[in-house]
Amino acid sequence: MARELRSWPWALVRLALYAACLGFVQGGKLLVFPVDGSHWLSMREVVQELSLRGHESTVVAPELSLHIREGRHYTLKTFPVMFSKDLFKDLMHTNIHKVFEPEPFLKRFFNSISLMKNASYMHLGFCRDLIYNKELMKSLEETHYDAVLTDPVIPCGAILAQYLSLPTVYFLRGVPCGLDTESTQCPDPSSYIPRMATENTDRMTFLQRVKNILYALPQNVVCHMLYSPFVSLASELLQRSLSIVDVLSHGSVWLMRTDFVMDYPKPVMPNMIFIGGINCAKNKQLSQEFEGYVNASGEHGIVVFSLGSMVSEIPMAKAMEIADALGTIPQTVLWRYTGKPPSNLAKNTKLVKWLPQNDLLGHPKTRAFITHAGSHGIYEGLCNGVPMVLMPLFGDQMDNAKRMESRGAGVTLNVLEMTSADLSKALKTVINDKSYKENIMRLSALHKDRPISPLDLAVFWVEFVMRNKGAPHLRPAAHDLNWFQYHSLDVIAFLLAIVLTVVFIAVKSYMFCCQKCFGKKGKAKKAPKSKSH
Amino acid sequence: MARELRSWPWALVRLALYAACLGFVQGGKLLVFPVDGSHWLSMREVVQELSLRGHESTVVAPELSLHIREGRHYTLKTFPVMFSKDLFKDLMHTNIHKVFEPEPFLKRFFNSISLMKNASYMHLGFCRDLIYNKELMKSLEETHYDAVLTDPVIPCGAILAQYLSLPTVYFLRGVPCGLDTESTQCPDPSSYIPRMATENTDRMTFLQRVKNILYALPQNVVCHMLYSPFVSLASELLQRSLSIVDVLSHGSVWLMRTDFVMDYPKPVMPNMIFIGGINCAKNKQLSQEFEGYVNASGEHGIVVFSLGSMVSEIPMAKAMEIADALGTIPQTVLWRYTGKPPSNLAKNTKLVKWLPQNDLLGHPKTRAFITHAGSHGIYEGLCNGVPMVLMPLFGDQMDNAKRMESRGAGVTLNVLEMTSADLSKALKTVINDKSYKENIMRLSALHKDRPISPLDLAVFWVEFVMRNKGAPHLRPAAHDLNWFQYHSLDVIAFLLAIVLTVVFIAVKSYMFCCQKCFGKKGKAKKAPKSKSH
Repeated sequence: MARELRSWPWALVRLALYAACLGFVQGGKLLVFPVDGSHWLSMREVVQELSLRGHESTVVAPELSLHIREGRHYTLKTFPVMFSKDLFKDLMHTNIHKVFEPEPFLKRFFNSISLMKNASYMHLGFCRDLIYNKELMKSLEETHYDAVLTDPVIPCGAILAQYLSLPTVYFLRGVPCGLDTESTQCPDPSSYIPRMATENTDRMTFLQRVKNILYALPQNVVCHMLYSPFVSLASELLQRSLSIVDVLSHGSVWLMRTDFVMDYPKPVMPNMIFIGGINCAKNKQLSQEFEGYVNASGEHGIVVFSLGSMVSEIPMAKAMEIADALGTIPQTVLWRYTGKPPSNLAKNTKLVKWLPQNDLLGHPKTRAFITHAGSHGIYEGLCNGVPMVLMPLFGDQMDNAKRMESRGAGVTLNVLEMTSADLSKALKTVINDKSYKENIMRLSALHKDRPISPLDLAVFWVEFVMRNKGAPHLRPAAHDLNWFQYHSLDVIAFLLAIVLTVVFIAVKSYMFCCQKCFGKKGKAKKAPKSKSH
Repeated sequence: MARELRSWPWALVRLALYAACLGFVQGGKLLVFPVDGSHWLSMREVVQELSLRGHESTVVAPELSLHIREGRHYTLKTFPVMFSKDLFKDLMHTNIHKVFEPEPFLKRFFNSISLMKNASYMHLGFCRDLIYNKELMKSLEETHYDAVLTDPVIPCGAILAQYLSLPTVYFLRGVPCGLDTESTQCPDPSSYIPRMATENTDRMTFLQRVKNILYALPQNVVCHMLYSPFVSLASELLQRSLSIVDVLSHGSVWLMRTDFVMDYPKPVMPNMIFIGGINCAKNKQLSQEFEGYVNASGEHGIVVFSLGSMVSEIPMAKAMEIADALGTIPQTVLWRYTGKPPSNLAKNTKLVKWLPQNDLLGHPKTRAFITHAGSHGIYEGLCNGVPMVLMPLFGDQMDNAKRMESRGAGVTLNVLEMTSADLSKALKTVINDKSYKENIMRLSALHKDRPISPLDLAVFWVEFVMRNKGAPHLRPAAHDLNWFQYHSLDVIAFLLAIVLTVVFIAVKSYMFCCQKCFGKKGKAKKAPKSKSH
């Protein structure tokens, strides 16, 4: 009831915003180059909304995709790729299984690098296949788009935008190794901004701050390795020498899937717009199937379990361990799982090939959410105020999990090391210890307490860039400075040189005076002595 | 017509926002401690809007005020002050006349300091009179306000808020010497962020960057002088040792009267909300008197001339020089002026004791705006798209003027050095050279192209702080670090010590090995020699 009451004013806000824009936004043309997976699923919301506002979007994607399909709100243009379909499937499959293999830290680290390298190699191949697809590139050039919408974590869209000389809106969770902060000229002190995969919070001990700096070093090497082939491709295409920062800093507006209820407050730039939670704005009615599960759960309610859009099955040993734990709670568990059902599956656990995650989390009978801590899942848990058991697998998931845990809204488990008892205990804790529900409800209220919905904000800024041909007034002059100018090192050196010169002259003058004075006195004193001889 | 068409959707947005807030905002109690002058005039808009949304505001002000009067949207509580009324008037009058006195740079600098010191001394006196007014303080304590709204440029409201342990919303143009950036932990590189009174833009030559750093040094000394008495008062009242940053950093949300169409883009913090142009959101119908002036101006239209709410008369010699220039243009000039009319006043120039500046600037027949470049005036010129002749007098006005001039939207004159011919030429330039109108119209469109009006944004954030008892999730952890921790100097020193120790041990080991190896060889070589003897 409360939700219905609250949702109609938002509908009114959005209606009014449409109207406000009607006067000066004509149907524009948007070129969209998405990144596959959940990245696309939330970007799609924006594309759909833009279509409702009269804009035409063309989504360009490789023919091998997990989630990028035809849609009625945009035109899909796929391009053929040289990468084999079997290799694509293999890569996805290997990636998923590798994360469940218990191996020593260093081996896991090098495995991760190897996996990232393979994925990067695949995306680079896709990018080459696009750039050298003369027919498609010609048609893109001839269409005269108003702007490009892309996720810069794979910089192909950014390269394409520079080639077509189009203003660009980035839609992202982040770019590894702080390349997003570097490309926006955003200060990023490591003393209180935790670096990726450190699991640090914003309040660090001395040793955690040491770790924060040390972790950045190998990450920078890895990032250089991953992005340098894209940089070469960009330099080749644009016929000038570029760095990855040159490629990314072309972005006019950065739509960041971040909210400071989840992430820690830190410096930002005026062209960064925060739209965290954009993926959970709308709760829809449950289908009959899921409504049935929920209603049948009785007073104990349900637990939603999903490891994200990329991971729908896991090794059998781990699945059995998990199934065992799920059987120990009185709630009905809805588990998104496409693999072979574990033989020890308890009666309270329903395996489903797909589940309407955000809608289920929005149901008042949902007691907990078992998630891999991907940013989309985290925001859906946050929006709907559901305590979480977090089982991070890769990427930013460890950090997301740490953020929720540090705020008392969830319990984190190491998916490799956890036992069945650990999962059972974690589930019982977040369900029965009231503080978890209270904390997530408080965070949820804060997260939703904003002057404009993240979806409307994102759509506004895409339209802004389209109608104003970019946002040059939001581009800081820091882009024109090199690093020593930025830090005023040349000015400091100049002022220091002046001070030292003045000091030097003063000392020399003083010594000269002393020599003159004491020299004479010395002579004067010595003179009588010589006379006395 | 276009304005009417555009304004109704905004009304709808605001209606919807009211409705959106209705569910979870109950009438709250706000304590307002404003700073007199134009600062109060724009803050009053927010207080009025809050009253319309059902909140009760109490405005606390000294009995000596220029503009703070009773109003139907708030309760005014004035307190008696020891400062004499005559001295108050004298101080205002001297301040105004001093700025028109042509004197050498250094004398002007020391004069300015002396004036600021006097004003600061007056405000400090007011603050003491409030803090030690037991009856008023007791009533403020007993009322249990939800939050404080104050302008921190005079930190009395901030001190009061800390004493009452209330969350605080700051409403400001800025605090001198970068105290606002320091108190929000916002990075502020001097390499591209122009310092006050330097008249630099964000793109500086090497020497301008040197100037940018050098100007900050004496300003810091002056600020220390101005603010240290407030700090002593705060330490005395709160019974603990404080710095000015400790006093100001208490603010939950900083409503900055800044917009990046006017100011240069730079790093910001998540609790800084940008509401530049809040004072010019609404254009009202002109009164019959002013409608008459405008209609009678014919095809040439009008020029609006005001030196702000603090300056309504100027020395006669300067007034005559200006009057002479105004007579050379065909436009009707509406000049806000309360002094004795200059004898050479031309027929086209109408002196008025007060003028509805924003409404006049919004009239399509307005051709130019002669302004002292106060931030309020600048934003009114910007909102309404009127090219400006800028005659900055003090404070941030030189910098505001430079910003408009650097964007091709106005011509700056030095009010002390300018001749009648200079003013005439500047007026003809901004009126007849189409580029000025084009530039200001482009800037105006950009400035107004935002997802939510600055007034609604300001009101939203005041309500946010009231209902959430502050905004701790937006407070960066940097507040808990000292300066060498913030810059990771301790970590760098630690890592350097490790590296040096390793190098030292390696070199020592190498030398030891060398000594062992070559030493033996040396001995081996020497041995035969000694044998040969």
